[in-house]
Amino acid sequence: MSVYTSVSEAQLSDWLRNYSIGRLSGFEPIRAGIENTNYFVTTTQGRYVLTLFERLPAAELPFYLDLMAHLARHGIPCPAPIADLSDRYLQSLNGKPAALVTRLAGKSIERPGAAECAELGMLLGRMHLAGRSYPAYLDLPRGPKWWREAAHEVKPFLKKSLYELLESEILYQSQHRFPDLPRGPVHGDLFRDNALLDEGRISAVFDFYFAGVECLLYDVAVCANDWCLVDPATDGRLDEARVRALIGGYEAVRPLTPLERAAWPVMLRAAALRFWLSRLHDFHLPRPGMLVHAHDPEHFRRILELRIAQQAPWAG
Amino acid sequence: MSVYTSVSEAQLSDWLRNYSIGRLSGFEPIRAGIENTNYFVTTTQGRYVLTLFERLPAAELPFYLDLMAHLARHGIPCPAPIADLSDRYLQSLNGKPAALVTRLAGKSIERPGAAECAELGMLLGRMHLAGRSYPAYLDLPRGPKWWREAAHEVKPFLKKSLYELLESEILYQSQHRFPDLPRGPVHGDLFRDNALLDEGRISAVFDFYFAGVECLLYDVAVCANDWCLVDPATDGRLDEARVRALIGGYEAVRPLTPLERAAWPVMLRAAALRFWLSRLHDFHLPRPGMLVHAHDPEHFRRILELRIAQQAPWAG
Repeated sequence: MSVYTSVSEAQLSDWLRNYSIGRLSGFEPIRAGIENTNYFVTTTQGRYVLTLFERLPAAELPFYLDLMAHLARHGIPCPAPIADLSDRYLQSLNGKPAALVTRLAGKSIERPGAAECAELGMLLGRMHLAGRSYPAYLDLPRGPKWWREAAHEVKPFLKKSLYELLESEILYQSQHRFPDLPRGPVHGDLFRDNALLDEGRISAVFDFYFAGVECLLYDVAVCANDWCLVDPATDGRLDEARVRALIGGYEAVRPLTPLERAAWPVMLRAAALRFWLSRLHDFHLPRPGMLVHAHDPEHFRRILELRIAQQAPWAG
Repeated sequence: MSVYTSVSEAQLSDWLRNYSIGRLSGFEPIRAGIENTNYFVTTTQGRYVLTLFERLPAAELPFYLDLMAHLARHGIPCPAPIADLSDRYLQSLNGKPAALVTRLAGKSIERPGAAECAELGMLLGRMHLAGRSYPAYLDLPRGPKWWREAAHEVKPFLKKSLYELLESEILYQSQHRFPDLPRGPVHGDLFRDNALLDEGRISAVFDFYFAGVECLLYDVAVCANDWCLVDPATDGRLDEARVRALIGGYEAVRPLTPLERAAWPVMLRAAALRFWLSRLHDFHLPRPGMLVHAHDPEHFRRILELRIAQQAPWAG
């Protein structure tokens, strides 16, 4: 579990006086997630998630919280930050920056079918349209600049062939930038475990703490590499029907441009590279106090190699 | 019913393209309410209420919509306005100013008990605390200035004794203003039919289109005159247990000042006067196209006379 900072009932009760959401009636740590400390919080008025930010730069937190608030007020089912009595989203608790957001209902899905991928595509499209009017800017935290830094840091731990793959893919990506693709705020990490479904609809997307401004298509590629695998456990190839559903749903809301269609295979590689790298980094350079088992980096190495080997089938 | 402006399915479908909330899947007019045209709207993503503003001054609409947005992001269960793709809450439809807000779940309650009145009190307290940081200002639309105008307009329809009651109460109220009571945004019309309950909790308060800045205590008095009657149909006296529960709940969140306690009987009279007057006005001067049966003004005349006759029992 990832509770880096413990919060007592008395502390939390007291802290909730900063808000107008009633009295504490229960709370429990959330065991998923590796970046922040999270608690489910229930009050006499509703259900919330409390996040204590463990290592995100304080200067970036308003970008994430304001983005969630922006998307929520556009009707996107994402957690809405709760403002405190001084009208701020960002508070502090136990010496850590902290925020309270609404808790949404629904269940995550391990094996999405084409219908769920189409729902996800529509939601992504709506989220990207709603994000257009979001005025703040932040480079994607796990973007190309970070790739180079992280590759440097994990190099001592990798055997030569793996490091060469990493280096050559970073080079390839640097030679295939897409300055003319539509850009905007992207979630950047919309894996199955960051979404909930309810009666066949996406009822929640959450964990926006890797969001930033990037090519919108990158978000679709991140989703494809997790939601549309032939078998998430054993086979990283893309299931064509689900990719087609994902993109079909997306295009029902925001049609892709010809440039975006052309960029798709490269974007799938970029999305695979990013998660291979972050998993390598978490695996070889775990943070002190990180109690969660790091994800196996091999999963995304295989996906990257598959995306390089087969130009991914265009599903349009 | 109060549908002054009809909206067709094709119009609504088309209009919803301004938003990122999915496609229209159903809509129906709402028959309650006498001020605006309202529709329940269901899309592939969620449930909403569409309001076409029939006679509210356009300049005042941002006060109401921004107040609802402010309260919603502080965790108050009120409808949250949905921003369109240009990031505005206020749109237009069929030549009318129009807004889309979230639709909240729950059931209204006809005969609240002490427990529900305590819940209402707590909610009012939280709403008032959350409203403190709301920066906009609007005089309560049905405040003292309007009382004088409305009394003048209904005068020709009233027999002498009734008009004298009206005039003497307006005079009494003008001699009992409370400049030192805590003020802030109040709902101003939180009758039983403007709230929903779910599992014993207030799950929604809505219809903020009579809100404005006023003594906070006035909001409590408006509620007492509707939620705490011995019998809403036949007996306008206050049920002391429920008044005590209402105020007890409120004070659990925001304790009243000694000045507020002293002002309570006058405030109950002010709240009765306001609704007697607006019902007289709606009854004798109905707007063209107003299809709803106006509420019987007599109900609030009796309540006013009762509040004058018995200094209302203080329930603190």
